[in-house]
Amino acid sequence: MGGAKIITPMRAITFTDELRVTQSQPKPDPRETESLVRVRLAGICNTDIEITKGYMGFRGVLGHEFVGTAESGPFAGKRVVGEINAACGHCVMCLSGNRTHCLNRTVLGIHDRNGAMADYLSLPHENLHPVPDSVSDQQAVFTEPLAAALEILEGVHIRPSERVVVVGDGKLGQLVAQVIALVGADLTVVGRHAQKLALVQRRGINTCLEGDAARLRGADVVVDCAGSAGGFALAAQLVRARGRVVLKSTIQGAHTVSLTPLAVNEVTLIGSRCGPFPAALRLLERGAVDVESLVSEVYPLHSGVAAFARAQAPGVMKVLLDAGYNADS
Amino acid sequence: MGGAKIITPMRAITFTDELRVTQSQPKPDPRETESLVRVRLAGICNTDIEITKGYMGFRGVLGHEFVGTAESGPFAGKRVVGEINAACGHCVMCLSGNRTHCLNRTVLGIHDRNGAMADYLSLPHENLHPVPDSVSDQQAVFTEPLAAALEILEGVHIRPSERVVVVGDGKLGQLVAQVIALVGADLTVVGRHAQKLALVQRRGINTCLEGDAARLRGADVVVDCAGSAGGFALAAQLVRARGRVVLKSTIQGAHTVSLTPLAVNEVTLIGSRCGPFPAALRLLERGAVDVESLVSEVYPLHSGVAAFARAQAPGVMKVLLDAGYNADS
Repeated sequence: MGGAKIITPMRAITFTDELRVTQSQPKPDPRETESLVRVRLAGICNTDIEITKGYMGFRGVLGHEFVGTAESGPFAGKRVVGEINAACGHCVMCLSGNRTHCLNRTVLGIHDRNGAMADYLSLPHENLHPVPDSVSDQQAVFTEPLAAALEILEGVHIRPSERVVVVGDGKLGQLVAQVIALVGADLTVVGRHAQKLALVQRRGINTCLEGDAARLRGADVVVDCAGSAGGFALAAQLVRARGRVVLKSTIQGAHTVSLTPLAVNEVTLIGSRCGPFPAALRLLERGAVDVESLVSEVYPLHSGVAAFARAQAPGVMKVLLDAGYNADS
Repeated sequence: MGGAKIITPMRAITFTDELRVTQSQPKPDPRETESLVRVRLAGICNTDIEITKGYMGFRGVLGHEFVGTAESGPFAGKRVVGEINAACGHCVMCLSGNRTHCLNRTVLGIHDRNGAMADYLSLPHENLHPVPDSVSDQQAVFTEPLAAALEILEGVHIRPSERVVVVGDGKLGQLVAQVIALVGADLTVVGRHAQKLALVQRRGINTCLEGDAARLRGADVVVDCAGSAGGFALAAQLVRARGRVVLKSTIQGAHTVSLTPLAVNEVTLIGSRCGPFPAALRLLERGAVDVESLVSEVYPLHSGVAAFARAQAPGVMKVLLDAGYNADS
């Protein structure tokens, strides 16, 4: 071929100074170590919404939850999902087996790497996982947040006999509750929305409105999925002395909290972020976790701005973006 | 005897609306399960100073660091030190082996129990530990804070090969540094006071002024002993991804901090309070920890107000109060 590279435009949802849909985002030009992926579905996560408020200072194509079809690389022609942290492979964190914490990482749609709300994305081959045939697109797009929920069990030993409280009845809280319920723990989800809590109750998990949460004091483990500064304060109140608080919320800006109760009560606080994709795919394949009922609406990619507005409306759970790609068409 | 109880007055340092020395504090009247202890020396801790700022809302006789002579109970006539948490023995925390977190506890000089800055105190027999003859009074009075430093090793596995940073060069930081140095870790103490850091250097431990702390980033374990809101923020900056922060500071009021880096970097935060007295006494008996050089000044009990002022002056380490009791006199 040789000569100047031809830049092919594609559609994408970008955040620069504002959220917008563009028709002229350059199609990714993958390196030798990367696959090109045609996006089928992408999900809107609270992190995407936080980014539009300034979180991480990210500018570019949004989105890190997706299912697509690989167009190059070892999985060409197959449906794939992808881990979002692209690692250098040679820093101290990579060499110590902590690739999701690579010091030089780029992160799909979050840090220095364009994301999944587009016709195409690129990721290192090693980040991709083929999707089993029995797992639908609408299930597979939940692989990333489900893996993030499973990261709690990677970081904390939750015993079947323990009493666990999940603070937050949103998208993440719903997945976290389902995962913790799998180990048999005595589980209650605390939230502010009767409608969202009803979704939890349908799975045989106890629920509690935030105003009544004081009765849950003394919990062995509390998971903060509230996505707001108040979630941590409530978690710190509900956990027993020498108990554990898992911090899943990533929010923009500072908290005003007293940390002293954590010292006095010798609480352990465990930060938790991205998790194991293979385990998430196994649970989806086994039908052990119900994700499809969490889908509130599916918007076409070109209605991305409306989709973001809808994702922040009361009572709305997961909003998906459909890139309009059908392998059969 | 029968009839009305005779109230015997004694000297004490009390905090009500203000700090004062009184001659008319009623001498403790121990229950059957408690020993009466004649105080020999008491130490001023930052927690005492925080109490005079409103921490814990405590009112009464201050002081929880002491060495004394038991005048009743199983150790009558012997020198003793005492664990500060008096437990009920029948709550869920006591029954699960967490007596320092008893739900009904009183705490010497901190919560619902008069403290050690007085001629006498009372504590449950089970809280007392006899002091080996080879351990001096000025060493023994450090048993409680040394045990609190050892609580870090109870709660966190610090490996000899790990890089550890202690934030804070004050009384607690000095003890914590000595304890962590014992396990062979690669240790640096960060502080604001060249004079206090020099004390650390004399023990062969690395030091760093706070302004240069950025070079210590990536530490496996960071211990916050700063006793100020800034200590936590610095600890969160210096710890590596998936590292551990130990929270020792107990301060009055709220912090304004972002907890999000703890989630993103999957940091574990471990609160740590009171620790094992027998281990602290073993280290003192073995001469493995040098505490006497941390004593800045000894005041007579009746000069308690001046002693508290001195304890907050720049460059001053441990200030002791001498109740003037000499078993030989």
